[in-house]
Amino acid sequence: MAELLQGKPVSDEIARNIESRVAALHELGVCPTLALVRVGDRPDDVAYERAVIKQAEALGVRTHQVTLAAGAAEDQVVRFIKAINADVDIHGCLLFRPLPPHLDEERVCNALAATKDVDGITSASLARVFIGSGLGFPPSTADACLKVLDYYGVPLEGARVVVVGRSLVVGRPLAMMLLARHATVTLCHSRTSDVAAVTREADVAVFASGRPKHFGAEYVRPGQVIVDVGINFDAAGVMCGDVDDAAVEPIVRAITPVPGGVGTVTTAMTLLHTVEAAEVAAREQMDIAIERLM
Amino acid sequence: MAELLQGKPVSDEIARNIESRVAALHELGVCPTLALVRVGDRPDDVAYERAVIKQAEALGVRTHQVTLAAGAAEDQVVRFIKAINADVDIHGCLLFRPLPPHLDEERVCNALAATKDVDGITSASLARVFIGSGLGFPPSTADACLKVLDYYGVPLEGARVVVVGRSLVVGRPLAMMLLARHATVTLCHSRTSDVAAVTREADVAVFASGRPKHFGAEYVRPGQVIVDVGINFDAAGVMCGDVDDAAVEPIVRAITPVPGGVGTVTTAMTLLHTVEAAEVAAREQMDIAIERLM
Repeated sequence: MAELLQGKPVSDEIARNIESRVAALHELGVCPTLALVRVGDRPDDVAYERAVIKQAEALGVRTHQVTLAAGAAEDQVVRFIKAINADVDIHGCLLFRPLPPHLDEERVCNALAATKDVDGITSASLARVFIGSGLGFPPSTADACLKVLDYYGVPLEGARVVVVGRSLVVGRPLAMMLLARHATVTLCHSRTSDVAAVTREADVAVFASGRPKHFGAEYVRPGQVIVDVGINFDAAGVMCGDVDDAAVEPIVRAITPVPGGVGTVTTAMTLLHTVEAAEVAAREQMDIAIERLM
Repeated sequence: MAELLQGKPVSDEIARNIESRVAALHELGVCPTLALVRVGDRPDDVAYERAVIKQAEALGVRTHQVTLAAGAAEDQVVRFIKAINADVDIHGCLLFRPLPPHLDEERVCNALAATKDVDGITSASLARVFIGSGLGFPPSTADACLKVLDYYGVPLEGARVVVVGRSLVVGRPLAMMLLARHATVTLCHSRTSDVAAVTREADVAVFASGRPKHFGAEYVRPGQVIVDVGINFDAAGVMCGDVDDAAVEPIVRAITPVPGGVGTVTTAMTLLHTVEAAEVAAREQMDIAIERLM
């Protein structure tokens, strides 16, 4: 039976890291603060927001809620995001997506300053992931996948890693991050002719295509590490991943469970990015203060 | 023996396309113009510059040479590029690289306006390739590879394409462009443990790692299409690609020769991008003029 790569010990380790860095920031009089921007009242946004606030509070990260009506005009949403950019007491911003369909998501996302883009939604952040330089943060889910693999000591350099799914939230940025770690990376997607043949070649296979329990025994082989990024609900309303775990677990070496895997680590990554953004801002403030003294 | 996928008929086709579009622009009183920025006098830069000027002139594209001393200060180079940005009569800019080592290449490149970045050297252009939206143009060499494959009718959708080399000039952007064409893409590089095993799996293998005649018979199999992006010189000073063509040609279905392959198409792509940039600028000028009339 596969080893289950639980997310809890990973997010616990990140939480300890956050706590000690938050303590240092508090001593400087800085309270790392994350703005949560929600347009409308979609139940899953509200539930996710509640979970982020709870975890942030437990770690000493302040949250600042901005809630707009589902019918809010695009210029209004952009104005609120620009106010967050201008507010020196806010270090990061999490925008709940998808936005209502009348809003141009790309325009709204790109209104956010890259330095506060702790979930990698701006073109600048994505460019940084692709190019390897610039401002911003990687998407938290992609970063969470990497953190889980690192925590469990899965070697990436020279490994063959196959990523199924090419979204800008996980697949494409994760492929670039794995490449930067010197993995040999293959991107599969809905037009790939024989996905199973490709994923069976992998040392590490990442499933991030949002198809509930779609990937069964034929997609894997013994010895593999499987990362299941899917967060879906089956016909009975029970949360499940992209992988048919009952079929896959008897075969592979290790797999991240759903729930309890990558998803558990994503919020911790957003908070870690917020702390990093607060540290950068605090350093800049100190540099300005020192310059004034001299 | 492999079919040789010659670049000449591809660049001829692009040239015809450019000529008819240049004629239309001339009728509007617009002369598409490409600035050539060279810092220092490296012989290969000078030779490439001469080739670009010759091809541009033949197609009715004007060139504008900016030549700076090898020791030019970074701020001076940046000032010249900003002057190009501000000049409405210049539509594209080609910067010869690598720059002398005292210059911060990333800063100099990013001084260029994305709308005039006809060789994909700015972060904005690369972000567009990665994200699929925004301003700028793909790197001309990567675009040339795609044009050659299209000209010879090589199917990409669902095909397994392996790219060897992860530079920002070819490998990484080309991988993203192939992905956008629905290929299943694998990126190999110097840390890949068994490159030959990976490239043998490909329907189309692209070699872009800059190692003269490095890839021999063991890297290929019958039926494959090989794209050789390398422009190297062997011990005898003769131009050669990354592929050992004497070993590979008897095995594969088709291969781009060096010289006479992808390299032949690159300059044509830069000129095509320049014409596209001039068309966009002309449309904007017309929109402004129409607005003033109303």
